[in-house]
Amino acid sequence: MSVPYPMAGLPRHVTVYEVGPRDGLQNESAIIPVEVKAEFIGRLADAGHKVIETTSFVHPRWVPQLADAEDLLTGLDRRPGIRYPVLVPNERGLDRALAHGVEEIAVFASATETFAAKNLNRGLESQFDMFEPVIARALEHGVKVRAYVSMCFGDPWEGHTPIAQVVAVGERLLGLGCHELSLGDTIGVGTPGHVTALIEAFRDPDRLAVHFHDTYGQALGNTLAALRAGVTTVDASTGGIGGCPYAESATGNLATEDLVWMLRGLGIETGLDLGKLVATSTWLAERLGRPSPSRVVQALSKG
Amino acid sequence: MSVPYPMAGLPRHVTVYEVGPRDGLQNESAIIPVEVKAEFIGRLADAGHKVIETTSFVHPRWVPQLADAEDLLTGLDRRPGIRYPVLVPNERGLDRALAHGVEEIAVFASATETFAAKNLNRGLESQFDMFEPVIARALEHGVKVRAYVSMCFGDPWEGHTPIAQVVAVGERLLGLGCHELSLGDTIGVGTPGHVTALIEAFRDPDRLAVHFHDTYGQALGNTLAALRAGVTTVDASTGGIGGCPYAESATGNLATEDLVWMLRGLGIETGLDLGKLVATSTWLAERLGRPSPSRVVQALSKG
Repeated sequence: MSVPYPMAGLPRHVTVYEVGPRDGLQNESAIIPVEVKAEFIGRLADAGHKVIETTSFVHPRWVPQLADAEDLLTGLDRRPGIRYPVLVPNERGLDRALAHGVEEIAVFASATETFAAKNLNRGLESQFDMFEPVIARALEHGVKVRAYVSMCFGDPWEGHTPIAQVVAVGERLLGLGCHELSLGDTIGVGTPGHVTALIEAFRDPDRLAVHFHDTYGQALGNTLAALRAGVTTVDASTGGIGGCPYAESATGNLATEDLVWMLRGLGIETGLDLGKLVATSTWLAERLGRPSPSRVVQALSKG
Repeated sequence: MSVPYPMAGLPRHVTVYEVGPRDGLQNESAIIPVEVKAEFIGRLADAGHKVIETTSFVHPRWVPQLADAEDLLTGLDRRPGIRYPVLVPNERGLDRALAHGVEEIAVFASATETFAAKNLNRGLESQFDMFEPVIARALEHGVKVRAYVSMCFGDPWEGHTPIAQVVAVGERLLGLGCHELSLGDTIGVGTPGHVTALIEAFRDPDRLAVHFHDTYGQALGNTLAALRAGVTTVDASTGGIGGCPYAESATGNLATEDLVWMLRGLGIETGLDLGKLVATSTWLAERLGRPSPSRVVQALSKG
């Protein structure tokens, strides 16, 4: 099964930005002990991951699943050559990240007015009042900043998200000094032509990453379109865990294993060991008390 | 959510070849009464389907789920402008199809030696002894013949299927007068570059259809590659029902709804009403006693 068939116009290497420990666990109902999280992250590193979004410094009241962020970072075996970014919602979160030697943070923006109000308690414009000081201070400390933009294709309240609106938010974040912009299809409604049009509307695809949800089964087709448009960083979650608790039916991060199956078949290097990823998802599923939604994990763990 | 974004190099219209009543029900453990099957097919026609593979004249001992083929065809309201092809494994099956006024049949070939032995009790070469008289006699009676080729990307015993081997089987079937060749990824292992390479190895993409399984989550990405390579007919199964009982872990036909979500987003016409398809899958799932594996059906029937 392992004969690769490259496809014209695709990159030779893709960076898989692993969001399982943060975006995945944040949206699972089970509360996982800190030592299990540390083992999870160690297993991801063993499988070849070079970027693992580790946790979030959001207030524990909002995300009890990640209330152990400080304990996790304190005890974590951070290996050389691996990036461990942490989500930071505000300046207080940044202070905590800096105190724990975090070298890369991520901020979380909205492409729509309604989601900015519901998720950030801000407007499309005023959300920047929150990000600007965080980004500026992070950069002063030599900390790299990734920016997420959520609801880039549609949201449950406003429907279709205009491309110009996403580009306005995204280019502004890049202009503030973020090294990477992750375009999120938080409710999974996008299709490949929409992905191409959105990426082409940005000045520089090199600084873009994509973050797809498999709610309508579109995540891999959309990824293929993004790779053709010049994107080389793809967000994914081990075993497909997680989603977004604020938006109804916004379940299903793209599973890392399903992504790696496609990339391996295309002869695109990721440095990842599929067998170890599947073993990790099978191990994690037992701890979460529910089977992995990844099709690859389901198929390979049957055999 | 309904703003279409066309993509360069894709067709404007795609024919969805619906395999639910045959390939879907054949591989479900529940035995569905004949009047429910007739209602199912009527609902598919109401949703806009123009090609519905209706049943199979395989021996009831092998496929008890379709033992009612003759009763179904006798009572079926075959509407003008809709094609109702029927799978026919051999000359006896053809006799039964002709006796029931069938205007289009499908034959089922294998791209690999081992699957030909296991599924057809023949070899890669000797399977043609079975097809040739069926195809010749069908054409004499003015009946159109579609040919399936299964295991086009890999099989569970031989691993990777060489492209030249698939092309040899496929071109021979086209040469015998089949109007359409459906290339099946029966165990779902293919990836987009492989799809492109296989389709380009054939003389004429106009006569090709694709039949993907979602076992590893690759079906829609593969479909996108096939459309780019010039294919305009895509097999799919309502709600993603069915699979292949002869090959281990060969589950998961591409769900019609997931396909239609992508095609609608790309602005590609199918003539299909997604709401009616989802309603049909929800109705059918109750009769099958298991939820639809389609992501679109799961997402839309939640709301």
